[in-house]
Amino acid sequence: MSEKPKFIYDFEEGSAEMKYVLGGKGANLAEMTRIGLPVPPGFTITCQTCNAYYQAGNKFPEGLDEQIDEHLPQLEKKMGKTLGDPKDPLLVSVRSGAPFSMPGMMETVLNLGLNDDSVRGLAELTRDERFAYDSYRRFIQMFGKVVMKVDGELFEHALRAKKEERRVRLDTELTADDLKELVAAFKKIVREETGKDFPTNPRIQLGYAIEAVFKSWNIKRAVDYRRLYKIPDDLGTAVNVQTMVFGNKGSNSATGVAFTRDPATGEKVRYGDYLINAQGEDVVAGIRNTEPIMKLEEEMAHAAAELFKIMDVLEKHYRDMCDIEFTIEQSKLWMLQTRIGKRTAAAALRIAVEMEREGLISKEEAVNRIDADQLDQLLHPQFDPKAKVEVLTKGLNASPGAAVGAVVFDADTAETRGLDGHPVILVRWETTPDDLHGMVAAEGILTSHGGKTSHAAVVARGMGKPCVCGAEKIKIDTVNKLFSVDGTVVHEGETISIDGTTGSVVLGPVPLVPPTPSAEFDTILNWADEIRKIGVRTNADTPEDAAKARRFGAEGIGLCRTEHMFLGDRLPIVQKMILSDDEAEVNRALEDLLKVQKEDFVGIFRAMDGLPVTIRLLDPPLHEFLPSGEDLRVEVTKMELTGAPEAEIAEKRKLLDAVQRMSEMNPMLGLRGCRLGIVWPDIYKMQVRAIMEAACEVKSSGGEPLVEIMIPLVSVVNELKVLREESEQVADEVIATYKQDIPYKVGTMIELPRAAITADDIAKVADFFSFGTNDLTQTTFGFSRDDIEGKFLPRYLERKILPANPFETIDEGVAELVEMGTNLGRRSNVDLKVGVCGEHGGDPASVKVFHKIGVSYVSCSPYRVPLARLAAAQAVMGEAKSDSR
Amino acid sequence: MSEKPKFIYDFEEGSAEMKYVLGGKGANLAEMTRIGLPVPPGFTITCQTCNAYYQAGNKFPEGLDEQIDEHLPQLEKKMGKTLGDPKDPLLVSVRSGAPFSMPGMMETVLNLGLNDDSVRGLAELTRDERFAYDSYRRFIQMFGKVVMKVDGELFEHALRAKKEERRVRLDTELTADDLKELVAAFKKIVREETGKDFPTNPRIQLGYAIEAVFKSWNIKRAVDYRRLYKIPDDLGTAVNVQTMVFGNKGSNSATGVAFTRDPATGEKVRYGDYLINAQGEDVVAGIRNTEPIMKLEEEMAHAAAELFKIMDVLEKHYRDMCDIEFTIEQSKLWMLQTRIGKRTAAAALRIAVEMEREGLISKEEAVNRIDADQLDQLLHPQFDPKAKVEVLTKGLNASPGAAVGAVVFDADTAETRGLDGHPVILVRWETTPDDLHGMVAAEGILTSHGGKTSHAAVVARGMGKPCVCGAEKIKIDTVNKLFSVDGTVVHEGETISIDGTTGSVVLGPVPLVPPTPSAEFDTILNWADEIRKIGVRTNADTPEDAAKARRFGAEGIGLCRTEHMFLGDRLPIVQKMILSDDEAEVNRALEDLLKVQKEDFVGIFRAMDGLPVTIRLLDPPLHEFLPSGEDLRVEVTKMELTGAPEAEIAEKRKLLDAVQRMSEMNPMLGLRGCRLGIVWPDIYKMQVRAIMEAACEVKSSGGEPLVEIMIPLVSVVNELKVLREESEQVADEVIATYKQDIPYKVGTMIELPRAAITADDIAKVADFFSFGTNDLTQTTFGFSRDDIEGKFLPRYLERKILPANPFETIDEGVAELVEMGTNLGRRSNVDLKVGVCGEHGGDPASVKVFHKIGVSYVSCSPYRVPLARLAAAQAVMGEAKSDSR
Repeated sequence: MSEKPKFIYDFEEGSAEMKYVLGGKGANLAEMTRIGLPVPPGFTITCQTCNAYYQAGNKFPEGLDEQIDEHLPQLEKKMGKTLGDPKDPLLVSVRSGAPFSMPGMMETVLNLGLNDDSVRGLAELTRDERFAYDSYRRFIQMFGKVVMKVDGELFEHALRAKKEERRVRLDTELTADDLKELVAAFKKIVREETGKDFPTNPRIQLGYAIEAVFKSWNIKRAVDYRRLYKIPDDLGTAVNVQTMVFGNKGSNSATGVAFTRDPATGEKVRYGDYLINAQGEDVVAGIRNTEPIMKLEEEMAHAAAELFKIMDVLEKHYRDMCDIEFTIEQSKLWMLQTRIGKRTAAAALRIAVEMEREGLISKEEAVNRIDADQLDQLLHPQFDPKAKVEVLTKGLNASPGAAVGAVVFDADTAETRGLDGHPVILVRWETTPDDLHGMVAAEGILTSHGGKTSHAAVVARGMGKPCVCGAEKIKIDTVNKLFSVDGTVVHEGETISIDGTTGSVVLGPVPLVPPTPSAEFDTILNWADEIRKIGVRTNADTPEDAAKARRFGAEGIGLCRTEHMFLGDRLPIVQKMILSDDEAEVNRALEDLLKVQKEDFVGIFRAMDGLPVTIRLLDPPLHEFLPSGEDLRVEVTKMELTGAPEAEIAEKRKLLDAVQRMSEMNPMLGLRGCRLGIVWPDIYKMQVRAIMEAACEVKSSGGEPLVEIMIPLVSVVNELKVLREESEQVADEVIATYKQDIPYKVGTMIELPRAAITADDIAKVADFFSFGTNDLTQTTFGFSRDDIEGKFLPRYLERKILPANPFETIDEGVAELVEMGTNLGRRSNVDLKVGVCGEHGGDPASVKVFHKIGVSYVSCSPYRVPLARLAAAQAVMGEAKSDSR
Repeated sequence: MSEKPKFIYDFEEGSAEMKYVLGGKGANLAEMTRIGLPVPPGFTITCQTCNAYYQAGNKFPEGLDEQIDEHLPQLEKKMGKTLGDPKDPLLVSVRSGAPFSMPGMMETVLNLGLNDDSVRGLAELTRDERFAYDSYRRFIQMFGKVVMKVDGELFEHALRAKKEERRVRLDTELTADDLKELVAAFKKIVREETGKDFPTNPRIQLGYAIEAVFKSWNIKRAVDYRRLYKIPDDLGTAVNVQTMVFGNKGSNSATGVAFTRDPATGEKVRYGDYLINAQGEDVVAGIRNTEPIMKLEEEMAHAAAELFKIMDVLEKHYRDMCDIEFTIEQSKLWMLQTRIGKRTAAAALRIAVEMEREGLISKEEAVNRIDADQLDQLLHPQFDPKAKVEVLTKGLNASPGAAVGAVVFDADTAETRGLDGHPVILVRWETTPDDLHGMVAAEGILTSHGGKTSHAAVVARGMGKPCVCGAEKIKIDTVNKLFSVDGTVVHEGETISIDGTTGSVVLGPVPLVPPTPSAEFDTILNWADEIRKIGVRTNADTPEDAAKARRFGAEGIGLCRTEHMFLGDRLPIVQKMILSDDEAEVNRALEDLLKVQKEDFVGIFRAMDGLPVTIRLLDPPLHEFLPSGEDLRVEVTKMELTGAPEAEIAEKRKLLDAVQRMSEMNPMLGLRGCRLGIVWPDIYKMQVRAIMEAACEVKSSGGEPLVEIMIPLVSVVNELKVLREESEQVADEVIATYKQDIPYKVGTMIELPRAAITADDIAKVADFFSFGTNDLTQTTFGFSRDDIEGKFLPRYLERKILPANPFETIDEGVAELVEMGTNLGRRSNVDLKVGVCGEHGGDPASVKVFHKIGVSYVSCSPYRVPLARLAAAQAVMGEAKSDSR
């Protein structure tokens, strides 16, 4: 027979390590007790008990009541008081406490143990009848609402009625007699609403209160919160039963919250607030103005000294900034809670760096303390936190940072106004590569459609430009140049503000505050660089982005997309190349493109001088460079019906024919990537020539270009074999002409399952692999990211069919293909370099997965380079931790 | 030091097994020599020598000339004649002979050894000056053209000129003197065209002729042929140097070809033709009327007896029907070639069955003798082979069989006319699910777009309906209801004929001959059933198809698609279900669908009584059931410009909005399959209810339905978990209501890479897997089969980037995922049934791969069931063969 489970731990029995048993609050109360700090005694019912409660079908598991009946008398003995004692009653609080903080999500009952008898004892003992009946009134109100499910508004209503009757404004102006009447009124409410009397037996009160906390684990707001913060549902909550202490017993009592350092700036100063003669909730509620913590020295020197000493002890003990709650009851200090304090990104950096300098933590710990996702906050302008904003609507927080500008609805207008120096926000249903020039010119992008990896989002993140996408309430009317949200109409030219960090859209201008990466930012990242084992490159298509990323610490370019070089003022040339039947004209177009692309590459090689630059040959289907067939059909229809000249119609129809011939049902799976290179070899040859000529010119002017040519979308080794041969031929020809010694590599994207599965074959003709995890995720799942994010991904996350958006954080199945491809590839080519250049390269959780797989580097958009550097270092430490387990 | 390679084998040295060394012809000449048949002596230069020739840079490899100089004198000694001897010259033929027959693709030189001296010897020896000079003339002509690359037309021209000069019509009317003059004229042509004299040295002639055969391995038509028949390029051709014998030495000479059985019917009778006093090419050329082989007994009793005896010997020796070439030179019979004879599908069956009965071969061998692809011929009507047809254009042979009907351009007209009993051919740019009712009503389908796995092709094959698709020269003008091909215009209502076996399109009616599967057909397939280890099911969506497939031997339904049940007259209900905002209306639509689907399932369960029926819940995206958004936009534009009533425009615009909201960039990767089931649970619930109610009703009327519910497009185990629970709930409810004991299974398609990779997880909640290899191929490669077949697949096959169309024959990378999924799945669920229901299930080469992986069954369209049965049996034997290696 198995031993009976231990449901309950006295505070003396636990420690900080036991948070999965005792919850965060319980574990830290135990820890403080353990190290001798003044904690009101109590005990904790474990998280596992909560699970057992649910497993038993919402019933106390067998033995729990018995264990309560053992621990409660011990507590009573410890305190010399008895629950419900009419002379000297013990009062307790009953509080939730899960392994991870879920502030305010679950239930709490205070002052438990009061009834018509014990309230008199309390009054006599404290010589404060008003205090006693106010406590009783509060208890009935809280218990009635939380445990007995009475509508809280009924109590509030009775309270208001009483105040009106007494013609007073504040609760505190009610007398003891008023409160006695209120107690009676509250009990009547309970009886009328529940058909039951308010329970007078404190032991029964306690049982109900514990059950209410168990139940609150699964109320909607708690479940939603867990989903949002990815907290597992099966952790359960602990229940802390603790002796009540009172900060509202006169002017020698107080209550407050404090941090051992400033959580906003990280400065090493005590930080916090307190209130004399108040209860904890009063501090948080902000009814009265609190005093800064340092003033406590003046008002209660002794207690303050003890508190400050304890704060120092706690910080040293936890080796981190602590967040504490305390109460002073008639000059006696009690610690009610401590935990590692939340902090802003800037504070996190400063605290970590200063603690390392103080010798409190190691460099590794300092690096590990920083939340990589949070770093992002530091790199983009923000809405001024002091500004009052009224949010018009919200979309997805697709690319961080805030922007303010006039609304425009098309890329051309954005470009014209933007180049004239007027800040604009480009508002589109969704963006396409055609909108690129407008996106470049805009301060920010707002779309009503598409997810976090939609075109707008990806491109905006790549540019480090704020973007809110998928703001579905926005109805765009491009004809009348306006959009509306629930009746509010915004015309072209009106100013809006968007915050890509939160997804907010605000009508009118919001003041912005600039990013201020601190010295600590660089310090932490330099430490991270010392620790990490995988490289960090950037995805950059322009010299500007390359330079920016290099400043952020990128060690080369992992993905330089060339399709952007086919857009803007080059689009007409590209269209000629695609559509012309005349070989000479096609060749002229290719020549023109060669010239301009060469310039692009020269700029990029210069910006990345001495660092490797991986250039991907053209990837998207050619029809992306042509107008939409649907629009053309509508135009032709219009021209026919409005009697346009026959020749013009014929011209337009010819274009329509060409576009229709090239149209595809599933462009993502069509004629693109290396398939283009095989069907239209001249484009790739032109690109290779442009790359190599650029490299030769940079080299001849003293630079050091490190060229890596990347063939996209390979599924079969022969594709790479053929295109590698053709590329080498052109490259060697250029090298011979320029008489320059340019070493170059030829490699491929691994972005299709078949490529990963047959990576051993492919690696035989590749110098490097770069996993395109965006496309690989699409084909591994059969998910089109253009389509699924708005359509079913939200529902999948809600129903927990997927743990996360696989386009944000690498999925385990996709990761398995990355691992398979890496291992197979290296098996047949030991020198193979393996990178990751999908969006996942900038996602901290994914970077850890890639580190574990053992890739050579990750590559991400410039603004995410610092995150990746940090995450890569943290991955090393995470590994060490699991090794030592 | 390695031994010198042996480049040459005398016929006495080889055997039939050596075809990869000696080529097919050489190996069989050696074999016949070995078993003592009268073969004109000679030797064979190996296929490896041909490769060595290319490796040496188009030069004879070192030692080849020396070996020729050893073997030639031996041959001369054997024959008692010498090459070029002016008295008694040895003449030889120099013929190609690859390991696989490539009839007429490579070069041959006859009568080699003649020059101005030896021709006189030949004349004297044969006492036939005309014969000698005709041989010489032919030699110069052939050698000049083949070896010296003189335009053959020049010789023909000179020959015609001579005949005109002599005022004769036939070559044979020219005299010896005429021929002497022609010899001189031919030599002059050679000198003028090549600047060189015709070589007189026979040894030099021989060297050149051998080289010419080597070179002919890589001429365009030979390379094309190899590509077509998938013959590897690195096999090389052998060169056979053989003593000439002459069937044109008078009336006691003859030449002919024969088969040991009738290659058209398989009947056990000698079959063939001969000509008295003729050379081999005369028989083939059809200049003179040949005599049937049995007549030879009357004309040359002795030679005939010997020939017939040899034919019997050969058939017994090769244990198969043989195809032979012979020459009788002055009453002496010579065997010039033998090989296993080609035969029609019907003949193959009869020969195999009869040989088994004769005790010549085993059942296994009989089964192994049938080419599974060829079987297909027997199941569909054909153009009458006797009909003279003029092909208008050709498309892809997408679905076998021939059809004749009036051209129609839309499905509705096809249906109306078809139901009225008028045969029609539906001609479309490409078909969509909306065309289904028209396809059902049509005799055959012709499309100008799309490949062999396009919608039209797949659906037509499923229906066993002839289809020619991707006939790109056809320009369809639906407005004027006509199509044109290179200027020929065909209007709606005109009759055309199509042959889906060959891809031909013919203007006007062609007489058809019906399929006549013989008794042998069933015999062979029954033997196959005894041998094979994997099951064969069918893909069938209607009771008719199910019944048909059952007659062809299907052991159940592996894939019953339900989307077809949403089309035709049900489409309006489906559209209401999709578009209505009114819950009651949606529910009514679902109720209506429930009723009709239930009827469908009742019919299918009855047709497959006692056999398992796997029903796939709805798979395609819902927008496939709606009109095209592009068409709607054009319509709205038209209505606006033509001033249609505002209310009508508004109505249309509302529909357009709805369609646009549902539109997807890549529908293949969008909201379809189980994703639909999760987002719109009511559809799946309705389908499960319809299935289970149908099963209960069938069971209560004495039937035995075996229900398998299949969830499509699962990528994550949780999708299946959720939908399985929901399905079971409905199913168990129906079972309880009907009080019937219906066992049912719930399983899933494995058609996404992630599903295969995580099959161990998925198998925990699946009773069976069915690999959807069409979709799996799409996502593994990132190929959209709707897009790639016309666009780049042909180029990929041509450049050998892929060995075959992966949508026809399973690709090795995709097969690896099938194997991985099968093994992982069975590891966590030992009872897991694993099927394959993609198109590959009916492809013999793929069936062999699936057998090897060890799936439980394959499933294919009804008409391919016999092929799959045969291929599955052959796979067992192929395995035994490789085991014993």
